[in-house]
Formats: sequence, structure tokens, C-alpha cells
Amino acid sequence: MSENKSRTGISSITPGEIRIRGYNIVELMGRKSFAEVAYLVLKGQLPTDAEGKMMDAILTSSVDHGVTPPSSLAARTVISGGNPLNAAVAGGILTIGDTHGGAIEQCARLLQNYAPKIGEPSEVAAELLADLKTQKMRMPGFGHRLHKTDPRTVRLFGMADELMFSGNHQTLAKAIETMFKEQGKSLPINVDGAIAAVISDMDFDWRLGKGFFIISRTVGLIAHANEELAREKPMRELGISDYIYDGPPPQKLED
Amino acid sequence: MSENKSRTGISSITPGEIRIRGYNIVELMGRKSFAEVAYLVLKGQLPTDAEGKMMDAILTSSVDHGVTPPSSLAARTVISGGNPLNAAVAGGILTIGDTHGGAIEQCARLLQNYAPKIGEPSEVAAELLADLKTQKMRMPGFGHRLHKTDPRTVRLFGMADELMFSGNHQTLAKAIETMFKEQGKSLPINVDGAIAAVISDMDFDWRLGKGFFIISRTVGLIAHANEELAREKPMRELGISDYIYDGPPPQKLED
Amino acid sequence: MSENKSRTGISSITPGEIRIRGYNIVELMGRKSFAEVAYLVLKGQLPTDAEGKMMDAILTSSVDHGVTPPSSLAARTVISGGNPLNAAVAGGILTIGDTHGGAIEQCARLLQNYAPKIGEPSEVAAELLADLKTQKMRMPGFGHRLHKTDPRTVRLFGMADELMFSGNHQTLAKAIETMFKEQGKSLPINVDGAIAAVISDMDFDWRLGKGFFIISRTVGLIAHANEELAREKPMRELGISDYIYDGPPPQKLED
Amino acid sequence: MSENKSRTGISSITPGEIRIRGYNIVELMGRKSFAEVAYLVLKGQLPTDAEGKMMDAILTSSVDHGVTPPSSLAARTVISGGNPLNAAVAGGILTIGDTHGGAIEQCARLLQNYAPKIGEPSEVAAELLADLKTQKMRMPGFGHRLHKTDPRTVRLFGMADELMFSGNHQTLAKAIETMFKEQGKSLPINVDGAIAAVISDMDFDWRLGKGFFIISRTVGLIAHANEELAREKPMRELGISDYIYDGPPPQKLED
Repeated sequence: MSENKSRTGISSITPGEIRIRGYNIVELMGRKSFAEVAYLVLKGQLPTDAEGKMMDAILTSSVDHGVTPPSSLAARTVISGGNPLNAAVAGGILTIGDTHGGAIEQCARLLQNYAPKIGEPSEVAAELLADLKTQKMRMPGFGHRLHKTDPRTVRLFGMADELMFSGNHQTLAKAIETMFKEQGKSLPINVDGAIAAVISDMDFDWRLGKGFFIISRTVGLIAHANEELAREKPMRELGISDYIYDGPPPQKLED
Repeated sequence: MSENKSRTGISSITPGEIRIRGYNIVELMGRKSFAEVAYLVLKGQLPTDAEGKMMDAILTSSVDHGVTPPSSLAARTVISGGNPLNAAVAGGILTIGDTHGGAIEQCARLLQNYAPKIGEPSEVAAELLADLKTQKMRMPGFGHRLHKTDPRTVRLFGMADELMFSGNHQTLAKAIETMFKEQGKSLPINVDGAIAAVISDMDFDWRLGKGFFIISRTVGLIAHANEELAREKPMRELGISDYIYDGPPPQKLED
Repeated sequence: MSENKSRTGISSITPGEIRIRGYNIVELMGRKSFAEVAYLVLKGQLPTDAEGKMMDAILTSSVDHGVTPPSSLAARTVISGGNPLNAAVAGGILTIGDTHGGAIEQCARLLQNYAPKIGEPSEVAAELLADLKTQKMRMPGFGHRLHKTDPRTVRLFGMADELMFSGNHQTLAKAIETMFKEQGKSLPINVDGAIAAVISDMDFDWRLGKGFFIISRTVGLIAHANEELAREKPMRELGISDYIYDGPPPQKLED
Repeated sequence: MSENKSRTGISSITPGEIRIRGYNIVELMGRKSFAEVAYLVLKGQLPTDAEGKMMDAILTSSVDHGVTPPSSLAARTVISGGNPLNAAVAGGILTIGDTHGGAIEQCARLLQNYAPKIGEPSEVAAELLADLKTQKMRMPGFGHRLHKTDPRTVRLFGMADELMFSGNHQTLAKAIETMFKEQGKSLPINVDGAIAAVISDMDFDWRLGKGFFIISRTVGLIAHANEELAREKPMRELGISDYIYDGPPPQKLED
């Protein structure tokens, strides 16, 4: 049985003490933000202040996108069937696949495979797009059904510049966007592509890509499930093509 | 069909603009922490600085508890079967029921029902415990199979005192703990009970109780699924009764 | 560790031999129907021929109900997000809660608690309904949003009569329906209530109630997920309030 | 909105009438077995008697394999956390991925791609294995960690011969097995591979492959969840490497 013995490098738990990647959880509480702790758990080391800020912005960027995404619909549908909150959130997270949130993982994998190649960014971008064409695949993380320019991309890339995180993955992503534009295609980097590029420049493994989206959107899913429970009758006919926003009016964030 | 029209007060989405509870997501990014944004999404309004700090500590407190909890085991089992990361996280979240994480919801409900009653805390605590006894129910959120005193409870209550969040729900929880001690029972408030008391004093609806645990633990589940994928063979015989920690040694958090 | 040793009475597995409740699976294959084997797995013993027939009819009765139930919608939503078939089915099954399919479990529990009471069926029915009124609960398994008389109920009860399975649980269910009618309420026994009464008369534990629905509907969910994949674009705007049937026209079952 | 209108060919539902692929559900109940109805739902037409028998055997073959598979462990873990039966089954089904049950889908896809090729079965088998070698992939559906010869394979292929379902997919699968043997590899066709070959000869799309396993194993998962609930304490330390069978002793199936 010894060969089955689990090994883990995430936490060590002893009576009265919980250590996360070596740090006492009690010391982390109150001194590190949750985003910094999430970085620690996923990366194995604490972030710098700049990395922590970037992490906060990444997690904020995908926190919610209304009732229309599949994940909101599924979470509402599960709770509407008379199930507990955790089942509703699980139902929502189940939808986060290749065509919903999954682009982060796929885009990060491509960027991490091609960015290290030698050559001008435009040449590497051309090679990547040619390879995808051969495989009859589309470039994930570009284009959005609603947003012509994704405001979250602009903000993430702006923060990455300010905090000095822009590296060759972001450069490659921008070169791909330029190439699309030259080909007359309107396929701007969307929020999935932007997160993929930034986490790649922060040296996260692409296999964790979907994880950032999941952590972030879980918050929105809880709110949707709770709103459905509080406001609607069980087992109503759920549809997403038509809805009304009746929350707070636009507000300015005070300094 | 108009009666089926969904209404939502969470986000409004228009081309080029995403507003969360009225705030432009682009303004939130970089200026508010993810924990503050989570508070905004769940509560409908921005937290004060003190509330934001408390939120960070609450979410940090449950971020991981090693490989033994049902949620870690389920997440590892699902990814071990050859499934995507989102399915593994969903599997983990499915386990978060009445006996795992669910105590937050149940404990918060009881505290919110009894704390408003008139009387000395010890009298209200006695009434609550007597009522539970009649229904042959145990008080959720007290006692831990491993930790005699839960260090996370001490830290959360300490921070709540410092940040001036201690209210009558924490007072009632402490009165219950005292009553158990007087009865010779070692049933200290565990982290679930502490979160239940603090979020109740922060005026969150008990129905959201499990949500705080879910947001928090999702981070740990992603790390466990990723570790399983990176280190272990698919479909190994997973067991949790025996495991070895081989991560970083204890580390001191620098100031 | 010995106290953690799992015990199971379901199957015994040794190299080259799989026994289900004591029976060699190879002998069951080809000689017993899947419905009979399902009965064996759930009950621990083989059904009589009549019980096997009833099991087939019960499982057939809930195999599908179109695209509008929450489970169909969730299964389609998950696969539409770019996920594997098993995740889609899991998403669908997650919705099968208190207000969708869950009535079998709840109705069976009530029937099993009250049917053994001494007295005329109408008296026991009156007592049951009075108790529910005190608890402000509705009787589960009665009434349907679409079907005035549920044709599946008529068929299940008819078969139970023919096959001589009608017992005091079905009698009680019918007494409740009569009582509703006398009160001027149109709340006929729906398929959930009928299954609840029949499996109770077949001596199944009410805790398995939802299980019959889950086994049955899993077939429909696979068909819905597969149809969505084959016919629709990923991440379309799924709505259920409006749809068109374009399958085979009505057909007569040949003898 | 009209382009979003759902179309479905599975069922048509009108007040008082439910038709499955054109057949009135009430006529199917009592006259067709559940396995035959499952065939109808998945294939769009009723099976012949022989096809119905084969379907019963296929669904029986995977109904349970004890407590050690990931799906049993996950179902037990979810219900052990204090969750409803449907969440436990969903957790179990989530594990049914590429390395657990998923081989049916993958094997059926390969068989359906290569079986139509012109040439001796041994030549086609050699081509298939050479192509897999180039892609550094293993042939799914062959070899079993426990069973040297999978008794379920022997039975399924035997029945297919008797019922005259043996076609070129089974021939190709057997040619692959022979080739492995000639190479000195003990990789007999396992139950996943056998189901893949038989459903391919029955003309089912490989995309439905995992579906047969899911329908079948759902029954076992319900039994495991129910046994866990009935026999064990909540949130026990679940492990699968060691367990005891304490069910009925070996029994002979009476004629």
C-alpha cells in the first residue's frame, strides 16, 4: 500500500496548526489579501505587491457577466429545481468548458508554446496562425459576441504596463491582434485572451488557466443562485434571451 | 412570455460596458481588491475598508485543509478519471454539504434567529440549546475532529474585535461555547461557526453562508486537482487515510 | 485503519469474476433484463417476473419529457459550453431536486409513514393532509402544470392492478386524490406520485425514490446532450420557453 | 429570436400525451423493456428483439464494479458530506472521463474510422496501431488492471455471435487483440472495448459511447450512495484501497 500513499505539497495540517505552502494560515489572515493567498496556493510562493495587485484585477475582471452566460443559467436552473447552493454552483462550474471560459487555458497553452520561439513577434504570430490554419482551428481568446473592444482587456494590459508585467506573451498576443486587423478581421483580444497573456507573463502554467476564471466567476454564480432563490418561483421556465436589469443605477467609484 | 422575463440586479451588460451592482468593472479593477468586489457582488454595496479586510481574512481562513476533506478527495478523483479541471472543481464543490462546510449556513441561521431575542446572552444561549435538544439536533459550527482550539476562530474573532465588528451574533456564539464548557463538553467554536458569527454581525443573509466557504475552498480544490494531474498516474487507488506532506518547510511571514 | 475499512454488500470483484448481490454478472447478461438487474442492485434480490415488468414500466415512464424540464436545459447548457458528455449528464442530474423529480422521494416517505396506520383510507388521508397543513407543506406528487390527468399514472396503476401489486400505498394515494377532488381541487396523482405509491407497494425504501427517476431520465439527458452537440452551435443563447418538435410523426406500436 | 428557437426530435409533449420518437409513452410502458426504450430514445427507432436483448446485456455488463472505481468513491464522498442523492450520482458521473469508462467513446471512434477501410482485418489493425504509435497514443479499450480475460467481453461477443450482430468492428477489435498477442503483449479486449465494438456493429454513433456506461453505472452509483448513507457515519475518512464484501454469498441463477 505504500505506493498508494498520497503526497501533497499544498498544506500541512497538524492539531492546532494549518500551514499553506509553509505559511501559518493565521499569519496570512489579516496580513495578506485573499488574492495574494490564492496566488500562494496556486504558485507555491507569495506574490510581490505588484503581482498581488495584478491577481486582484484578474480575479475581478471575470466576476460576473449577467444572466446570459451558460454558467449563470445552469446555476439558476439547478437551484430552481430545489437543490442546495453548492449543487447550483457546481452546475454552473460544469458549463465552464472549451467554449465558455476555456479559452484562457487554450490561449495560454499556445502563447506559452510559441512565445519562446526566436524571431520578430509578427513572424511568430504568423507561424502560430499558419499552424492553426493547418489544423483547422481558430485562435482562442480573440473576438467577443458583444464587446467590439473588451474594456477588461484594455484595463488588464494597462495595469500590466504600469506594474511592469508586460512580457513576450502579451507582445505575441498583441502581434496576433495586429495581424488579424491587417487581414481585415475584427478579432480583438477578449478578456480570456488577456488573462491568458498576463498569467503567462507571470509564469503560471497554462493548465491552471481555467482556474482563474472559475475562482472569479464562482462569486457571480453564488449571487445568481441566491437571487433566483430570493425572487423567483421554483421550476419556472428559465430562458436567457430576454431579461431586464433592475439593480442599482450607474455609480461612480469614489476615490 | 413576459411573465418569464428574467430580472436581475447583479450586473448590467451593454456593448463595451460591464457594470457590477452599478459600478463599472474597469474602475473596480486595480482599485478594489477581489475580496471587496466579492462583498459588492454578494451584498449589493461596497464594503468599508474594515469590512474589506474582514472579507479577505474570512476567505483566507478556509482556502485549504489538506487532502483529507471530502472535497479534496472528490476533486482528485474526478481529474484522475480523465476529466477537465472544471469538472474536478464541480465534483469537489458537490461534497460541500451539511456535514462539510454546511455548518456555516446552519449556524448562521440559528444565530440570526436567536441573537435578536431579548435577554442575557447566556439565557438566549440556553434557550437555543434547549430548542435544539427538543428537535434532537446538534449545534452546528462547534467542535472539530482535529483542532482542540481552532486557530482560525481565534484569529477571526481577534480581527473582528480590532476592526470593531463584534456584535451580538459573536456574543451569542461565545455564550454557547461557555455553556458547553460548563456542561463539561469540549465543543469550541470551529472555523465554520466563527465565519457564521462574523458574517451575521456583518449583516449577511444566512442563505449565503455556504457561499463564503465555496469561494474560498475553490482555490484549494484547483491546487489539489492540478497537483493530482501533475504528480500521479490516472485512476490510481485514491485513499485519504494516509498521506505525506512534502511541500515547503515552515516559513515565517516577513513584515 | 481497520475501523475505516469499507464494507459493501453490493458486488464482489475478484480476478475474472464479478458478482452482483451474489449473482455472476455473466449469468445475468442475456438472461435477465437491465430493469431486473437494476432491481437486483437496488433491492438486493432478484424480482419476480411481475416485479421485473413493473420495473420496466416505471423506468420507461420518466425517460424523457422534452426540452423544457430543468434537467434537459442544464444538460444542453453544459455540453454547449464545450464539455464532455458525462459533465452534461451530471449537470442535468444536479437539477433533479425537491421541485423536479424529488417528489417521488418525499411522497414515498409520507405514504410509507401513514399507510401502516390503522383506519379507513379516507381517515388516514385526512390525517396526513391535516398534518401537512399544520406544517404549511403541500402534498408532493399531486398535480401537474401541463397534464390534467397524467397518462403515465393511469398506465402505472393499471399495470399494478393487472400484475397484482396494488397495495395500501396506492390505496392511500387514491384516497388523497379523492379528498382533493371533494375539496374542489384538481390535483390528480402525477407520475412522481404514482411511482412513489407503486415502489412503496413493492417495498422499496423511500430514500431510493429519486433514484428511479434518475436512472430513467439519464437516458433522455444523453439524447438531449447529443442532439445539442449534433445540431446547434456552441454557446448559443439557450431558452426553453419556445421550441419546435421536428422528430418522427406519431407512430403506432405494432404488436 | 426565431433563430434561437430550439428544435428537438426526441419527444413531443402536449397536454395528456407524451410521445417518445413518435411513440406514445403509455403504449411503450408494459410492452417494451426499458432497454428497448433506451435504444429508441438514443437511436430514434425501435430495436428488433435481438437488438433489444443485446441492449439489455450491454447495460447489465457495466452496472457495478464494487467500491474501488473512482465513480463509487466520488458518489460515496458526496453523500457522506451531507448532500442529496442526485448530487452524489452527479459526482460519480463526473468521474467517468477518459480513463474511467471513457474508453468506450475513444475505442468506438477509432473502430468506426478504421473498420470501413479496405483490406484484411490484420492489415487494418496494423495500420491503426501504427497511426496510434505515431501519435504516441495507446489503444483504448484493451487491457484491465484486474481481469486477465474480461468475462464480460467473452459474454458480450458470445451473445453478439448468437444474435448475429458480429460485424466488421468486432472483427477489427479481435484482430487488434491478436496483433497484441503476437507482439507478446497481454492486452485483451476489456468490457469498454467490447461495448465499443458491439455498439459500432449496431450502428450507434461513437459520440454516444460513454452514454451506455453512464446509464448502466448510474444504478450502481445509487446503490453505493444509499449503502454509504445507511451504514456509515457522515464525513468518515473514505479510502478505497481496502474493503470487505459482506453481501450475499455466491448464488446460482435459477432457470
